[in-house]
Amino acid sequence: MPPLRYELLRQDDSSRARLGRVTTPHGSFDTPAFMPVGTQATIKGLLPTMVAELNSQIILANTYHLMLRPGSELIAQMGGLHQWMRWDRPILTDSGGFQVFSLSDINQIDDDGVRFKSHLDGKNVLLTPARSMEVQNQLGADIIMAFDDCPPANAERDEAQGLEAAEGADESAPPLSTRASRDVEGESPNRRAPKPKTTPERLREAVTRSARWLDLCVAAHARKQDQALFGIVQGGIDLDLRTWSASHARGHDLPGYAIGGVAVGEGYEQLVRVVQHTAPLLPEDRPRYLMGVGYERDILAAVRSGVDMFDCVLPTRNGRNANAFTPTGQMRLRNAKYAADAQVIDPECDCPACGTGKGFSRSYLRHLFAAGEMLGPILVSAHNIRHFQRYLLDIRQAIAHNDWSLIARRWPVAMA
Amino acid sequence: MPPLRYELLRQDDSSRARLGRVTTPHGSFDTPAFMPVGTQATIKGLLPTMVAELNSQIILANTYHLMLRPGSELIAQMGGLHQWMRWDRPILTDSGGFQVFSLSDINQIDDDGVRFKSHLDGKNVLLTPARSMEVQNQLGADIIMAFDDCPPANAERDEAQGLEAAEGADESAPPLSTRASRDVEGESPNRRAPKPKTTPERLREAVTRSARWLDLCVAAHARKQDQALFGIVQGGIDLDLRTWSASHARGHDLPGYAIGGVAVGEGYEQLVRVVQHTAPLLPEDRPRYLMGVGYERDILAAVRSGVDMFDCVLPTRNGRNANAFTPTGQMRLRNAKYAADAQVIDPECDCPACGTGKGFSRSYLRHLFAAGEMLGPILVSAHNIRHFQRYLLDIRQAIAHNDWSLIARRWPVAMA
Repeated sequence: MPPLRYELLRQDDSSRARLGRVTTPHGSFDTPAFMPVGTQATIKGLLPTMVAELNSQIILANTYHLMLRPGSELIAQMGGLHQWMRWDRPILTDSGGFQVFSLSDINQIDDDGVRFKSHLDGKNVLLTPARSMEVQNQLGADIIMAFDDCPPANAERDEAQGLEAAEGADESAPPLSTRASRDVEGESPNRRAPKPKTTPERLREAVTRSARWLDLCVAAHARKQDQALFGIVQGGIDLDLRTWSASHARGHDLPGYAIGGVAVGEGYEQLVRVVQHTAPLLPEDRPRYLMGVGYERDILAAVRSGVDMFDCVLPTRNGRNANAFTPTGQMRLRNAKYAADAQVIDPECDCPACGTGKGFSRSYLRHLFAAGEMLGPILVSAHNIRHFQRYLLDIRQAIAHNDWSLIARRWPVAMA
Repeated sequence: MPPLRYELLRQDDSSRARLGRVTTPHGSFDTPAFMPVGTQATIKGLLPTMVAELNSQIILANTYHLMLRPGSELIAQMGGLHQWMRWDRPILTDSGGFQVFSLSDINQIDDDGVRFKSHLDGKNVLLTPARSMEVQNQLGADIIMAFDDCPPANAERDEAQGLEAAEGADESAPPLSTRASRDVEGESPNRRAPKPKTTPERLREAVTRSARWLDLCVAAHARKQDQALFGIVQGGIDLDLRTWSASHARGHDLPGYAIGGVAVGEGYEQLVRVVQHTAPLLPEDRPRYLMGVGYERDILAAVRSGVDMFDCVLPTRNGRNANAFTPTGQMRLRNAKYAADAQVIDPECDCPACGTGKGFSRSYLRHLFAAGEMLGPILVSAHNIRHFQRYLLDIRQAIAHNDWSLIARRWPVAMA
């Protein structure tokens, strides 16, 4: 009995998009799927029951953070991540690699692994493919990710994906670039020192090293019967490297595959180019996961290239900063023009904030943020997650009925 | 048709405790009742639906805060407080007086009112009895309070009411004195400069001025048909002043009466002495409200003196500081001894955190606070409110069945 089963329910006529269903030891989720990010074993500000009611069928947690605090041994002792955080649906954990490379001071990288200083207390920590597997085995997620070498991306802000200028600027908000989407929850991108650009040689080294590390992960994975290990295709925007990496990963006959190293500042055109090239290289009968993506438009392009799974911190991070997603773009609720606005964020939305038009007014939400009240981040985070789950519901409808006019009509933001 | 109806359902045999029911334009609440505090038109961290599910039948909001931000005119324009904050059950607003005297820099007090600087932006504001009525009429609560002269109390920390020493100390937590219970939510007592002691002359002046201001409030109150104005008995620990103040207030034949100026550092013995003296001076057929009280033991003594209504910030304030109320005393969830504790806070509790034993472990809650996650304050605030609502449910049971052994058995903390 494999730890994960993928059923392809319908292939779209006009694109590579596919409707599917993934079954894990903690139940099933429909694909294409959107996974909210619970970095520290909680979706910030939301009870797990509410996250489920927003139609989240699977969530993501960050191995790096939980390994450092409270430690995966403690979580294992408490019965594993599902039991500990009271989430009985599927969970995916990342490998810790991305955060090691983006959040910590790295002392040494070699073929064995990465030696780094914890961002919490400066303690020296060694993360290797085998250790990442051990930690993820202890956490006990349904889907676990291979540990890979993630050199810093050549990140630049992707202004095209930022807010409409008409909504004004807010210094307290993090930069709204595609880059942000691959961060962990709760970390300000500003905390990190600028990293050097990755040279073509370093990128090639990372791809070949990630391949060797995948071999080691497969060998070290101790819970193959109930945890599905996904391999990750790397290669930046070098399509030949992507082809090589995909071919190596497929050699392991894994239950699923991810595309990593995108949404790191390469811009929409390159993102689409890489995903359109890479997704078809992955097996038809396994789920495909595009890591850290993203905005509505990115998700649509990736779905139409054959991607099945997405994760992103934007709904909760932007929710905490009073930025509400709507089908026509983001709404900055701190804006003075909402002071006496009796409308809800989105009258079509059925989230706890909007209540299909009977919820909390923009006026009240603006007050909550002005007054520094927790209920503001709570309500707008819930709304934003529901926004993405409703969007994915409509995408699944579009595939099911072979009718993409639904997306064009209801989600102008995805057509931008 | 009066704006408020009090039904006395049962008088206890062994004390002045009484079971009752108060009906307002927004529905009824059972008495003795506990009102959570929503200073800025939100119970910190909780959706209104959750506050109601915890069995809160009425909440309190602070006129001072809402008057300064966003302004009562705006809230009136948005349909009033109930509509704006999406709470359709009864609401009580205080007069703003207590916060003016405790939070702001006062420029001038005279028989007209108080001129002070806003704690938000330093702007000069004048609050008078008529203006307090106007603001409360605009907010539209079911019960509104007379504007009174509240000289600073001779507050000293009441160590007897603090945490058990065994639980350790936490500098980040506010002082746990009865004083804290009369504060507004979200304000650190440390922000305030020490106030001079109130002399007997100043106390007498405050009582007579409050009486004149009550006359002005009664005259200015413009929504007598749907908002019940409560008079407030002042007088500190001077029982003669209390008698005089009660007699004056009764002269107005108001729909309800409050005892103010207690739980301000006078200590448990004096609190009980004042309440035992004052409550019987108030009419049998009207609800009696003891402002800003308090701990379980204080509430029990006041109920047995004939008090019907209570409000307190302790459940939410302490909840945000990882202090959970239990029937045997407070539990500091930051304590290292809970790191691997799989039990819920209180296995008998049916709140969202405890789930009658099937909820979140102390281990997980401790992690949430260590990691600075919002879900910690949310869950422990919900638990603490439910703790007080369960306590009041049991008190009402005790009166209904004339059996106080229930309280002694289930709530040892109240017997301390």
